[in-house]
Amino acid sequence: MYKKEIKVLDCTVRDGGLMNKWQFSKEMVKSVYDSCVEAGVDYMEIGYISSEDQFSRSEFGPWKFCSESDVREIVGENNTKTKLSVLADIGRINFNDIRPASESVIDMFRVAAYDYQIDKAIELAHHAMDKGYETTINLMAVTKVNERSLNEVLSDVQKSRVNTFYLVDSFGSMYSEDIQMFMKKYKDALPGKTIGFHGHNNMQLAFANTIECIIQGATMLDATMLGIGRGAGNCPLEILISFLKNPKYRLKPILQSIQDHIKPLQKDIDWGYFLPYMIAGSLNEHPRNAMAWMNSDKKEDYVGFLEDAFEKREDLK
Amino acid sequence: MYKKEIKVLDCTVRDGGLMNKWQFSKEMVKSVYDSCVEAGVDYMEIGYISSEDQFSRSEFGPWKFCSESDVREIVGENNTKTKLSVLADIGRINFNDIRPASESVIDMFRVAAYDYQIDKAIELAHHAMDKGYETTINLMAVTKVNERSLNEVLSDVQKSRVNTFYLVDSFGSMYSEDIQMFMKKYKDALPGKTIGFHGHNNMQLAFANTIECIIQGATMLDATMLGIGRGAGNCPLEILISFLKNPKYRLKPILQSIQDHIKPLQKDIDWGYFLPYMIAGSLNEHPRNAMAWMNSDKKEDYVGFLEDAFEKREDLK
Repeated sequence: MYKKEIKVLDCTVRDGGLMNKWQFSKEMVKSVYDSCVEAGVDYMEIGYISSEDQFSRSEFGPWKFCSESDVREIVGENNTKTKLSVLADIGRINFNDIRPASESVIDMFRVAAYDYQIDKAIELAHHAMDKGYETTINLMAVTKVNERSLNEVLSDVQKSRVNTFYLVDSFGSMYSEDIQMFMKKYKDALPGKTIGFHGHNNMQLAFANTIECIIQGATMLDATMLGIGRGAGNCPLEILISFLKNPKYRLKPILQSIQDHIKPLQKDIDWGYFLPYMIAGSLNEHPRNAMAWMNSDKKEDYVGFLEDAFEKREDLK
Repeated sequence: MYKKEIKVLDCTVRDGGLMNKWQFSKEMVKSVYDSCVEAGVDYMEIGYISSEDQFSRSEFGPWKFCSESDVREIVGENNTKTKLSVLADIGRINFNDIRPASESVIDMFRVAAYDYQIDKAIELAHHAMDKGYETTINLMAVTKVNERSLNEVLSDVQKSRVNTFYLVDSFGSMYSEDIQMFMKKYKDALPGKTIGFHGHNNMQLAFANTIECIIQGATMLDATMLGIGRGAGNCPLEILISFLKNPKYRLKPILQSIQDHIKPLQKDIDWGYFLPYMIAGSLNEHPRNAMAWMNSDKKEDYVGFLEDAFEKREDLK
């Protein structure tokens, strides 16, 4: 399935950092960057971009902020084919703190937004575009959005100048038939725009859903090394690269970075296939309760988590 | 996706035993059986059936043999809705050792065969049917079988009295498009017969491929608790049960058995998502080299395994 339009975006540091407040060593981040470059990965998302007055540096590591100096310490001038992206949450970045793209090594701003934030997301994306950045809008939690609201979001995005829109499986709850439905809807509503996909792996479907998205026409694909990411994590980059037939990609540098830096993180961080995450995904629920359970001494009480999850589903009472 | 024809077969003990020579405690096997019954699982495959002169009891646990007395010690008379199955390898069971079904608590013989063994597989299955058992034939390693040979197998099976034929992803190398192709071929060639699916999880696709098989018309679905099985393991039963909408199935007893008996096995047995298994799957190779690598001190040298795998691919030299 060789499609030359496909772009792969590594978000190992950005999504993985949700599990340890971005407290990664510089060696780890540098290794991820070097291996993305060597592997031919098209974009590396190095973190969230937030203004310094929004979070404390004593609590959060540098990849919660992505200051120009911290990023340059890893990538220098980034004279490579791998572009750099950052993710912006609505309200966490002051417009005045965004420097012109000509003065930054960052190439792309991705804006994460809930459906009710779409106007603000478009405003932020347009602002970043005016400063010279590529942009995307990533609509979160779409499996909780009703049809009329989603139609309005898609109509607003289509009228905007933003060129790339993401299907995001925030809760890892989508099956292949959901992917087909959403992709058809997005493609029909957004002619001429690029569609991306960001999956979560609660039910071991992140890679399978990524393949389904490719079949349905998505061309920007998010993945992380060893699937590291919030809760169950993401589509594993190494499986995606093994699958893609484009000769520009190389697997070996990714394996090297995994064995040197990512696999050892499993001693301290529980991402991946754990039953509380699976249950949350199958219930189409935010992973926050599962993450709290995984951080408690009830971690391996799966029956308890299932009972608790149903008790918390007030709509089922 | 409620289809009343769907049957789920748990092969936790049978496929999981490939990782520890079936040295499970009686408590574990009893727990798997009890939870299958309580969860509404249609079949439990309790092990391989082999004649006692074929393997040593000092090396292999009881579920390599499935003697009537060992099975009855777990299931009694099995007065439940869950049927019991055993897997037979060609040449490992003497025909005379198969007792009439009326004298056994075992309900089904499944016959695993390579394409060149299909005549023997049909002979064994017919013999078991004549003794009163349900039967299936499970064609292994089909991703290495050429089109003409596969057509011959399908023609032979269609002419036989065997009612159920399995699509088996022995190497965990199938993508959704492979599933679609094989399922169409099997359905077209075997009108009136039941199609089953047995997946492996090397590329985290066992559950996704199971869904695709359901969509394409397969109705017998293999799975194991926590995905335990050879190498990367199988489709996790708990995700499949969460997905199926048939109200006869219950998730909780399966979670209970996993937390009491299956999860603790991970201390000693490395099944699941490990990169050597992923690489073997993506190369459409038997897992034996990956399993040997995982049992060596090079277990976490993924780059080394990749290089080794390519060196062993003589056809690429």
